[in-house]
Formats: sequence, C-alpha cells, structure tokens
Amino acid sequence: VKVALFAGNHGVTAQGVSPYPSAVTVQMVENFRHGGAAINALSNTLGLKLSVLPLSLDMPTGDISVTDAMSVGETLEALNAGARAVDPEADLLVVGEMGIGNTTIAAALCAASLGGNGLDWAGAGTGLDSAGVVHKAKVIDRAMARASVSGPFEILRQLGGRELAAIAGAVCAARARRLPVILDGFVTCAAVAPLFAAEPAILDHCLAGHRSAERGHARLLERFNLRPVLDLDMRLGEGSGGALAAAVVRAAVATHTQMTTFAGAGVSDRAG
Amino acid sequence: VKVALFAGNHGVTAQGVSPYPSAVTVQMVENFRHGGAAINALSNTLGLKLSVLPLSLDMPTGDISVTDAMSVGETLEALNAGARAVDPEADLLVVGEMGIGNTTIAAALCAASLGGNGLDWAGAGTGLDSAGVVHKAKVIDRAMARASVSGPFEILRQLGGRELAAIAGAVCAARARRLPVILDGFVTCAAVAPLFAAEPAILDHCLAGHRSAERGHARLLERFNLRPVLDLDMRLGEGSGGALAAAVVRAAVATHTQMTTFAGAGVSDRAG
Repeated sequence: VKVALFAGNHGVTAQGVSPYPSAVTVQMVENFRHGGAAINALSNTLGLKLSVLPLSLDMPTGDISVTDAMSVGETLEALNAGARAVDPEADLLVVGEMGIGNTTIAAALCAASLGGNGLDWAGAGTGLDSAGVVHKAKVIDRAMARASVSGPFEILRQLGGRELAAIAGAVCAARARRLPVILDGFVTCAAVAPLFAAEPAILDHCLAGHRSAERGHARLLERFNLRPVLDLDMRLGEGSGGALAAAVVRAAVATHTQMTTFAGAGVSDRAG
Repeated sequence: VKVALFAGNHGVTAQGVSPYPSAVTVQMVENFRHGGAAINALSNTLGLKLSVLPLSLDMPTGDISVTDAMSVGETLEALNAGARAVDPEADLLVVGEMGIGNTTIAAALCAASLGGNGLDWAGAGTGLDSAGVVHKAKVIDRAMARASVSGPFEILRQLGGRELAAIAGAVCAARARRLPVILDGFVTCAAVAPLFAAEPAILDHCLAGHRSAERGHARLLERFNLRPVLDLDMRLGEGSGGALAAAVVRAAVATHTQMTTFAGAGVSDRAG
C-alpha cells in the first residue's frame, strides 16, 4: 500500500481565504520529510509507504478569483507528475494532499463540475469562522463568474491547483493500471470531481476512505454515490483518512484470502 | 492489544432459534485454534493477540424459555472466567463471542435490562428469515414471562449464557484495572446491558468497536450513548468488528503520541 501525498501553493491565498500563510505548505512538507506529521505516524503504524511530492511550491498558481490557475503546460505537467507517482508495484494507492488555500480551490472545482455556488461547497478548511466561510464563498463565486470552463481539463486549468491536478492524473493512471485507489477527504475528492462530471464510471476503481468533517465532503460523496469506509469527523487532509481506511481494506482482503471455508474447517452447515 | 473470545452453548437452541446446530460452536472453536476463522485473519494482519476461551461447551445452559440458564455457582464461575482472561499487561482489550443461539440470549438480556419485548430486540442472527425472527421473539417473550429478574447478576443467571457472563466479568475486571475495552457487536454489548442498567457509568472505559447489522445493535448503542468507531454492516461476531476498531484506535494513539507540534516542526501559526 502506497500513500502519495501531493503539495501545492495557491495564488488565491492573496484573497485571505485561509487563516494560515502559504509558507505553511513548504513547512509542512519539511515536517513530512522529518516524520513529524500525522500522516507519518499513521504510515509508520500501519506499515504504509509514504511518498511526498511537492509541486513547484515556490511558484504558486494564479489567483483564480482574477486569473487562470495554470497554463496548459503547467496543467499537463501537474497531471503527469501525478501519473508518474503511481507505483506499478503497489496493490493499493492512497492519494492525499497538502496546500494552504486548497479547500477554496476544491470548492471551486466542485461548483464548476457539479453545479452550485460558493456557499454550497465552501467550508471552514483549516479553521475559518462563519464570516470567513462567507468571504471564501464570495471569492469562489468571483472565480466562477470569471472562468469559462468546459470539460475536466479546462476546469482543472482555470480553477484548479497543481496538487489537485496531480491527484486527477494519479487516479487516471491508476485506473489504466487496474490499481484500486482510496480517496482521502474533501480536497482529494474534489480533485476528481471534474473527471466524474465528464464520465462517472471513471471513479469505479476508487473507494472513499472517509467522510471528512469539512462541509462539502458529505455532499460530494453523495454525488459520487460513494459510501465512506470511515466516518470519524477527521478533517486534516495529508491522506490521513485514506491511510486509516487502507488498514481496514487490507484487513478485509486478509480475511477474504485467509479464511477457511465451513467445509474446510469441518463446520456443520445449516440444519434446515 | 488482546482479543478475548469467549464461547458458550445454549439450551434455548432446542426451540429452533438458530438455523445452525449447537455443534457448530465447538467446531468453530477448533477453527479458531487452527487459525481458519475471520478473527484469526484479522488478528494476524493487525498484530493482535487472540485468546479463545470455550466455557463448558459440552454442558449447555438451561433453555431460558422453560428454566434458568445457570445456577448461582455456574454464573459466578463464568463471571470469574471472564475476569481471569483480563491480561494485566495488555493496553487495550477487545471482547468477542461465539455461541450458536446467543443472539436470542442477547435479546433477552436487552429486554430484561432496558425494557421492550422480544420483537424489539430479536434479529436475524446467523441468518433467520422474518418468520424465524418472529418465532425467536416469541421464545424470548416466553423467557421474559417466566423469569423474575432483579439486578444484573440475576438477569445474567436466569436469562444469560456463560460467554455473555464472562464478557460482563471481563469488562468489570478491566475497569478495576483501568484497562480500556472495545466492545464488539450486538451480543457483546448485550452482555454488559445488565451492568449498564444498574450503573450507566460502568461502561465509561468502553468503546463501541462498530455498529453491527444485527437488528438490535443500533438501538442498544443509542441506549448506551456510544458512537461506534466503525459502521461497516459487519455481523459476524467473534470479536471481528472490535478487532478492526482496535487498529483504528491504535493508529489514533500513535498519531497522538508521535506527532510533532507546530512549534517543534517550525510551522507558522495562524496569520490573524
């Protein structure tokens, strides 16, 4: 089981959509590398292989409320970075993310892919109060009014972010290799919403690892028609919910493969 | 983490409350010992220590629809067997059970402890159809009409079973040793319902491992005011849901103990 954790920075943080500065993204990547984050503890305890993939953190995307997030070339680069992260030897892939400002990006992708406005999809993220959520929703609405999206590639390019495009690329590459994927929380699921909008069956190889406490996630899972493995009010990102769900899935597979049949164990069948 | 799995046989199977013969209990204990059951696969994969404790399987309890399940001495013996199974070295105890007929016993304990009739608490168990559940409920109602219960010991003695009394004993002994407990499904929870009815705080050291698909379990967890760790439509018993939940709890503890603080990792605090 491999956890691929993508990190990106977002120009939209200029609009004050997160209580934390963008510098936290690179600081958390360092923390992942030194083993101090939640996903490190989970990966160690559960025996998962963690890969951290920062994507041009010193070059944030465009502020989506005023301009496109990425050029065509940058979008392709991010999609391909995600595809390259798919380990052909893995039996299960968990995708996760880190990026200050990316719940704003996630909400914009949901609105552009599935309908609704900013307030339908915006949540507290790393800890906005309700006034902060209303402001965030307005920023998303400005982005939606500005963009002219058509199809998943343009949604990801105009309104997305590098780590979200990478997740979309990884999910597609995993599908091509018949590798099952566990999605983490709201941002991870939002990253594949543009794919789902174009072709719902594209997520048939994906499980929802958990239902996050981030506001839009329950609604998004309903639209995907995915029942989450876990429902523990987690809301951290980093692939943390997906990693924990991977332990449950691995145990289920072990049970399926290791159990003896009733006949094999000499257990009597039903009386009737 | 230790899984204590108690097995017992029940005279009430004479009333046709299970589609499987009582012989399956001892056959499954053999299966546990040979490592062929679901709880073996789960314990192996999750690194849990499994103890299987069969309780006088060749001497089923009395048929509760016509007589008391156990004598005072037998009840004490079962309670003490449970208490003795508590490993003083363990940091977490999962309790589970196996016993053909024991969902009938569990439903009777719930009705006697918390009110309601047979149909309020009876479910499909190992696979009764709806007519079978109605019959099972009538058997429980006959037992309730016959018994004159007062207090947890008498409920367990008159309407209980050895493995359920052992679970009650283990939960009490764990509490005395400040050892947290994960309860498995309907039968395990029903085993402690008589204790809960006498003193609700007696379960304050217990987590509900999961919400089982067995019909009475959701209602019972609501009465306990316990939110289950998992909700996966499991319905096997054997401690299987509790074992899986133990993996989640262990991961949570690892996260709590291993994570660096923001200050320790040099991560910026909130901007505002």
